[in-house]
Amino acid sequence: MKLLEDRIRKDGVIREGNVLKVDSFLNHQMDIELFREIGKEFKRRFADVEINKILTIEASGIGIACVAAEYFGVPVVFAKKNKTKNIAGDVYTTRVESFTHGRVFDIIVSKQFLGKGDKVLLIDDFLANGKALEGLAELVHEAGAELAGAGIVIEKGFQRGGDAIRAKGIRLESLAIVESMDEKTGTIVFRENN
Amino acid sequence: MKLLEDRIRKDGVIREGNVLKVDSFLNHQMDIELFREIGKEFKRRFADVEINKILTIEASGIGIACVAAEYFGVPVVFAKKNKTKNIAGDVYTTRVESFTHGRVFDIIVSKQFLGKGDKVLLIDDFLANGKALEGLAELVHEAGAELAGAGIVIEKGFQRGGDAIRAKGIRLESLAIVESMDEKTGTIVFRENN
Repeated sequence: MKLLEDRIRKDGVIREGNVLKVDSFLNHQMDIELFREIGKEFKRRFADVEINKILTIEASGIGIACVAAEYFGVPVVFAKKNKTKNIAGDVYTTRVESFTHGRVFDIIVSKQFLGKGDKVLLIDDFLANGKALEGLAELVHEAGAELAGAGIVIEKGFQRGGDAIRAKGIRLESLAIVESMDEKTGTIVFRENN
Repeated sequence: MKLLEDRIRKDGVIREGNVLKVDSFLNHQMDIELFREIGKEFKRRFADVEINKILTIEASGIGIACVAAEYFGVPVVFAKKNKTKNIAGDVYTTRVESFTHGRVFDIIVSKQFLGKGDKVLLIDDFLANGKALEGLAELVHEAGAELAGAGIVIEKGFQRGGDAIRAKGIRLESLAIVESMDEKTGTIVFRENN
């Protein structure tokens, strides 16, 4: 998605350790006009797929998922991150390892809001090692729902997540795939992508 | 807002201890069609006010704020909840006491995304004791920005938050104000409200 790649080049900041900061428009301050274009593009890419629910994870996936949902005409459910161990029996839960935050947490979704017959599109802002997305896919599986695919705004193509998700046969659409980035020159190379 | 009050009566669940669960349409599963109506109503109520930024707090405020922002044509910034004590110098921060979760946490916003000249509308899903909203107002004050007002989806009118916010001279628009609710009969009384 050229608009998005241009924006990442313009406003993204590369930091040591392959960190790409896009918090001026994607995940702290949020450019809602851009979110609308992102939502339209997700709808275009998944136009052939039946979807009746979008599942995302708190916090930074929520805004993108909600604006995208307007183009799909479906509700959004967000998985909650839970640091406690007291999980009631009325939720689906799985464990996710976060490299960014260096900790393990449970993600949970109420059984009321995900189940058999649901055709679920996963949406998130970033895909790096893929643990969060794998966790969401696991919740869909636990619920007996159908996983229609996953839409990601920025995939770090040089990390293992994208390949791992694709290897599971999950249809993955990443709107921008960063192939490599150079902290010193500020150069970002994107993968040719639809 | 009648549509919202009707929805709360239909799908809200009253629990012991004055808990009102609306997680089937507002803060776990999110009805995006309803969010659009909420967004339009916030715009109608704040039509006379100049606003160039919406500020909310993770997680459940984000979806409502993003959809509302489409009607205002402004970006959204969300304050992050931080449980660590390592706050860098490039953020505004204040402490918030959560009665629901029985703990104290810091909320933070990057100084990059809030500052002099900003005319800020606060948006959140719930107002009960008002601590989160007071925290957001404090961040706006720290940043030297102007607080245009606060838009709340559901105010618990029998708790102190709404009065405390109004007493500070903050323009507060709550789309539904619960005056009282009865767990045994399932009755909810709303305050007459625009």
